[in-house]
Amino acid sequence: MINVLFSAAPARWDQYNAALRTAFKNASLDVNLSREFEDPKDVDYLVIAPNGPITDFSPFTNAKAALNLWAGVESLMPNPTLTMPLARMVDSGLSEGMREYVCGHALRYHLEMDNFICAKGTEWRYQVPPLARHRTVGILGLGELGSACAQALTGLGFNTLGWSRTPKEIANVKCYSGTEGLAELLSQTEILVLLLPLTAQTENVINAETLAMLPKGARIINPGRGALIDDDALLAALNTGHIAHATLDVFRVEPLPSDHPYWHCDNVTITPHNASETRADTSSEIIADNIRRSEAGEPLRFLVDRSAGY
Amino acid sequence: MINVLFSAAPARWDQYNAALRTAFKNASLDVNLSREFEDPKDVDYLVIAPNGPITDFSPFTNAKAALNLWAGVESLMPNPTLTMPLARMVDSGLSEGMREYVCGHALRYHLEMDNFICAKGTEWRYQVPPLARHRTVGILGLGELGSACAQALTGLGFNTLGWSRTPKEIANVKCYSGTEGLAELLSQTEILVLLLPLTAQTENVINAETLAMLPKGARIINPGRGALIDDDALLAALNTGHIAHATLDVFRVEPLPSDHPYWHCDNVTITPHNASETRADTSSEIIADNIRRSEAGEPLRFLVDRSAGY
Repeated sequence: MINVLFSAAPARWDQYNAALRTAFKNASLDVNLSREFEDPKDVDYLVIAPNGPITDFSPFTNAKAALNLWAGVESLMPNPTLTMPLARMVDSGLSEGMREYVCGHALRYHLEMDNFICAKGTEWRYQVPPLARHRTVGILGLGELGSACAQALTGLGFNTLGWSRTPKEIANVKCYSGTEGLAELLSQTEILVLLLPLTAQTENVINAETLAMLPKGARIINPGRGALIDDDALLAALNTGHIAHATLDVFRVEPLPSDHPYWHCDNVTITPHNASETRADTSSEIIADNIRRSEAGEPLRFLVDRSAGY
Repeated sequence: MINVLFSAAPARWDQYNAALRTAFKNASLDVNLSREFEDPKDVDYLVIAPNGPITDFSPFTNAKAALNLWAGVESLMPNPTLTMPLARMVDSGLSEGMREYVCGHALRYHLEMDNFICAKGTEWRYQVPPLARHRTVGILGLGELGSACAQALTGLGFNTLGWSRTPKEIANVKCYSGTEGLAELLSQTEILVLLLPLTAQTENVINAETLAMLPKGARIINPGRGALIDDDALLAALNTGHIAHATLDVFRVEPLPSDHPYWHCDNVTITPHNASETRADTSSEIIADNIRRSEAGEPLRFLVDRSAGY
């Protein structure tokens, strides 16, 4: 019998309880899943979320791993009591949803859709957009999500560039890395997509200096992390029109406070952190698979590298 | 020396003159391209457009083929003097542009983007759309454009259905044909895309009866032909909300007259027949290739089947 403690917000229990039990059963795992164990020493695995109730992980002395329900782990990283192996969530539903959001908003910008969606009056204003192959989209971050988006954008015909901390290769995507690579990518990018993890190195990566590297009229899509952007610098660039428009899904504080200037900025579209959502069914399969691996002595998938911060 | 008469609206000459000359040169064709020949009998090939100046083709007794600059030929079909082989335009730029428009607006509907693009105020309304694989898109018409769109939608993950007059097969697309097949497709379709050619059989294919077959709340994207839709029936269905929204790129009269009710319908987006545009460079290559084929005794590509009407 494997004891698995589920420790996320109560609303998640309703969402994950049945899905996890199904996934454990399908993986032939004999699991005792509960939201409470009398003795923390009995817990073999922790299923956690960054906003979950546990802040002190030190009593779980026998836990073999902590399995995060979400992709982002930056709020867990500083916790000194979280010493067991930690796995991020990378589920196919998350990649699929992200791919749909990024492709949708990239095509929206490419086709200048807002001109028609928000049009009032009866003006027939004929204009034909260029083909996607003549439109350059740059993606910062080429992890699971960034790579999935880069491939989908390439599939739609976009001239797709990608940047990552360490050099990567993706078919039909021009890949850059390092500080010089970032400047090279930005100077060509008409539509910028932010899908970097949040680390000390990536915080405020979009600031006055990097915004100035983008061509005038560039558009920004941020479904990654709010703190990747220096908000004051972006607001200033939106105000001058150097950045024509931004679509923001993530913010330093969520829900975005009602007095935040983004709400009142005509060239900002706000989506409520719904670009992609971990799905209970697909992510429960990942968690079951990682417990099976651990029990079989195989390496965990999506293990967090604490030195890199993700 | 091959005599090619260019007979489209004068504005097109500026667009195509250089592109055609380049394409002829690249195809090693010795062509005399002109907008006028003293003796119509000297003309070997006609490059035409449905809105071009020639209405009587009978003087061109030696013309081996008429090569249309556009995909649609319905306005040329009734001309009894147009007796030579007629080729439609199917250029890669046209397919690419159409793919971008259809995928863009399908994703826009799928992600409920208008709620966020047009939002006023400061309301953070959390809602997560389903994955595209749980969203059904139906395409009427599986010719070059419809097939390209079906494949791209499938690539994005959509559950994609297609319908054509004669049975077709496309990988990962559930294909229907015939009257019963149309009803089956419509009953499942959340986002309907119209890419049929306009013929006597397809005119008003979207009417009160077929609209009623769609599930309540369906959305319609029409980048095909305006007359595929019975406008009064669609307006009635938009008014009751049975059809939640329509994005229309083509109309019976263009530009859409300013007193047309579509302009004043809150749940209609009008685009100015810009879903896709034949591109001078790519389509000139098709025309050059067809002349080369004809001169070599090979069959023309994209030859119009007059009995089918397209």
